[in-house]
Amino acid sequence: MKIQVFVTLKNGVLDPQGKAIHHALEGLGFAGVNDVRAGKLIELDLADDVADETVEDMCRKLLANTVIENFRIVRPETAA
Amino acid sequence: MKIQVFVTLKNGVLDPQGKAIHHALEGLGFAGVNDVRAGKLIELDLADDVADETVEDMCRKLLANTVIENFRIVRPETAA
Repeated sequence: MKIQVFVTLKNGVLDPQGKAIHHALEGLGFAGVNDVRAGKLIELDLADDVADETVEDMCRKLLANTVIENFRIVRPETAA
Repeated sequence: MKIQVFVTLKNGVLDPQGKAIHHALEGLGFAGVNDVRAGKLIELDLADDVADETVEDMCRKLLANTVIENFRIVRPETAA
């Protein structure tokens, strides 16, 4: 079972990586970029008996720093 | 217009960050983890007149290293 975890910085938290990407896009001549935010995508290949709560536990304990980051878990049924 | 770009390592490319996460999850006592791959999520806030081809150009020129990485562009209509 493949699960995707999206980790993004909370609103209001400074994002130097995003700023750098924004700056570089402008330097390359791309117009119309208002804002860039950088985050992480973690793909977990899990055994089928791993519960949803366990995945959430993984996020809270390791994958995301919940003080400054939000996380979103996407299961295969709902994956884009 | 908010667009999400997912950048993931191609199959076969070593992923030390994913390996480290996998190892750490096991160290925390989580069982049933078969594999972990780490990638990037870049959220672009673009002007409405930016064309799809321009976004793809941004990915090829800056956001992804297409030798070792794949990228996927998700528009708001199709966002998960």
